[in-house]
Amino acid sequence: MTSPPPVAVLGTGTALLGAPIDNDTIGARFGADPRWIEHFIGTRTRHLGVDLDTGKVTHTLVDLATGAAEAALAAAGVTASEVDVVVLATASPDHLMPASVNLVADRLGVHGVPTLQLQSGCAGALQALDTARRMIDADRPVALVVGADSCVKHLVLDRDLARVPTTELVNYVIFGDGAGAAVLGAGEDGGTLLRTVHNRFVGLGRDPGQVIRWFGAADRDSTDQPVDEDYKAIEAGVPVLAADATAELLAETGWAADTVTHLLPPQLGGRMTTQITRGLVERFGLGAAQEISCVADTGNNGNALPLLQLHRLVGDLPVGSRAVGVAVESSKWIRTGLAVEAR
Amino acid sequence: MTSPPPVAVLGTGTALLGAPIDNDTIGARFGADPRWIEHFIGTRTRHLGVDLDTGKVTHTLVDLATGAAEAALAAAGVTASEVDVVVLATASPDHLMPASVNLVADRLGVHGVPTLQLQSGCAGALQALDTARRMIDADRPVALVVGADSCVKHLVLDRDLARVPTTELVNYVIFGDGAGAAVLGAGEDGGTLLRTVHNRFVGLGRDPGQVIRWFGAADRDSTDQPVDEDYKAIEAGVPVLAADATAELLAETGWAADTVTHLLPPQLGGRMTTQITRGLVERFGLGAAQEISCVADTGNNGNALPLLQLHRLVGDLPVGSRAVGVAVESSKWIRTGLAVEAR
Repeated sequence: MTSPPPVAVLGTGTALLGAPIDNDTIGARFGADPRWIEHFIGTRTRHLGVDLDTGKVTHTLVDLATGAAEAALAAAGVTASEVDVVVLATASPDHLMPASVNLVADRLGVHGVPTLQLQSGCAGALQALDTARRMIDADRPVALVVGADSCVKHLVLDRDLARVPTTELVNYVIFGDGAGAAVLGAGEDGGTLLRTVHNRFVGLGRDPGQVIRWFGAADRDSTDQPVDEDYKAIEAGVPVLAADATAELLAETGWAADTVTHLLPPQLGGRMTTQITRGLVERFGLGAAQEISCVADTGNNGNALPLLQLHRLVGDLPVGSRAVGVAVESSKWIRTGLAVEAR
Repeated sequence: MTSPPPVAVLGTGTALLGAPIDNDTIGARFGADPRWIEHFIGTRTRHLGVDLDTGKVTHTLVDLATGAAEAALAAAGVTASEVDVVVLATASPDHLMPASVNLVADRLGVHGVPTLQLQSGCAGALQALDTARRMIDADRPVALVVGADSCVKHLVLDRDLARVPTTELVNYVIFGDGAGAAVLGAGEDGGTLLRTVHNRFVGLGRDPGQVIRWFGAADRDSTDQPVDEDYKAIEAGVPVLAADATAELLAETGWAADTVTHLLPPQLGGRMTTQITRGLVERFGLGAAQEISCVADTGNNGNALPLLQLHRLVGDLPVGSRAVGVAVESSKWIRTGLAVEAR
């Protein structure tokens, strides 16, 4: 697809609400060994939108998304009335209807413009960036992009996990809740620029790596598992797709690998992300690039992650910086990539 | 927002699977008076994706969406490998993850391109048309747009409805299941053209007219109602928003009302749609326009409806035809409009 012109990243923001929860706390709550979490998952802390002692919801998806959006608008110096389109990506909306994006728009005071909500996994944040940059132009130049997930909704908290298989216990220690947001501006040719985004479904004929079910009126008594993850397929598949995405980014931008200053790898869990980064650095010669990762501190909060990485990246980016970022969705296999440069 | 150039409607298709279910059957099953359904709702038949006797699912959302997509591709003479982007709008995905659009892409044989799923109500079909036309250009010209809903998922079927209030009983007789699809082509300046689409969130400070909840791991035992509808707010709000959307379409196209040949009104239920059409005809002088409605035959199948109307419209559209269409989402109040012309 012909790439539209670069758009500026005018501001970013995050919402990681509540105190970070460490592995000792998670381990004690769910019957997991904190050293196993540290070593095999590689995640140190995460934020959750429920009180683990009472089960009470402390932050909804809309709370998280609104918080990140407000922070990004403030950073960009943009008011709600200046926003020309809102795109929210999430796998865990508060309701099916209204779409959460509209409740976020309501809280922000956005009115009279398109509000879109993409149902997707991590890659959804890049799908949202891609969609948003195509919705804006010089006449209506401002897009608000939010990626948010409340993964704790997919966990059964009042459950004895002592005997569940490790592959299922992973779900209880790898996930987190949070949101990231970015304000994009069209028609600017300086500053921090989102140079390109690509987004490719590559799941033809492949089994899903992840299934998350919802239950409604018709099947609340279903005995189906809410969440199935095929971590073996994910561990095998994601590095390959991350390499494909990186190759496409380097080809599209024409950037020599040794001129890339920052690398934003897929954020699965701390350990897997480290391995993928190592593989990408070796294969493409990205040794000069600084890794921008957050999952070890934030947990895997899905659609928030790429925007949390973008937030860390753009804080104080020297002119001449070149960043490539990759997100992979393993539910039905989507690979996405973005390139950012500071001019 | 500056409107992108018109795109061609290369083909359309629908999936209304299973035999139509009449009011006598629905009335007997749910304890409603068939004459009340006919008179106050104005819907004669609908299609449902479950067997009402056994409760067994006969058609999933993915089945419906795939069926409509295949029909639209066949009508357009386009193969799956020629599709450059897929956009599906639905309020009732089969799962949260994978997004249903990716399972549809898999069944169709689409690969390597963006697949987007919009979580939305009826207006989602127009959001999808708007998003899709912005994702294509002369180099990657083909978009597949699908609108589909499986509303029966939101109903409790094993329930005695004899004593439920009328406002709730309405849900059991007004909805249906189905899908519609369209193939759009960029860079064509003749044939049936989608001239413009607009999409505006106008719910600032307004209570939702509809809430549809999902239940997952965390709250399967919740006693919350799966579906709440505020039919009074919908009856009051939709005609106003439909008029606003029509006014914007006429202004944007510059079409004199008496040159509009077809009107695609919002599809709530047969009776309400008839009233809204009458109001629009009177207010804007659209007496020359032929009404294109399907809800009385198909039931309210959400995101399918605007594409079912589009399918009826474009079948054999004479050169010089001008159609305006409106869809309103009452969950958190979105008004959308489209203009189609045959050159």
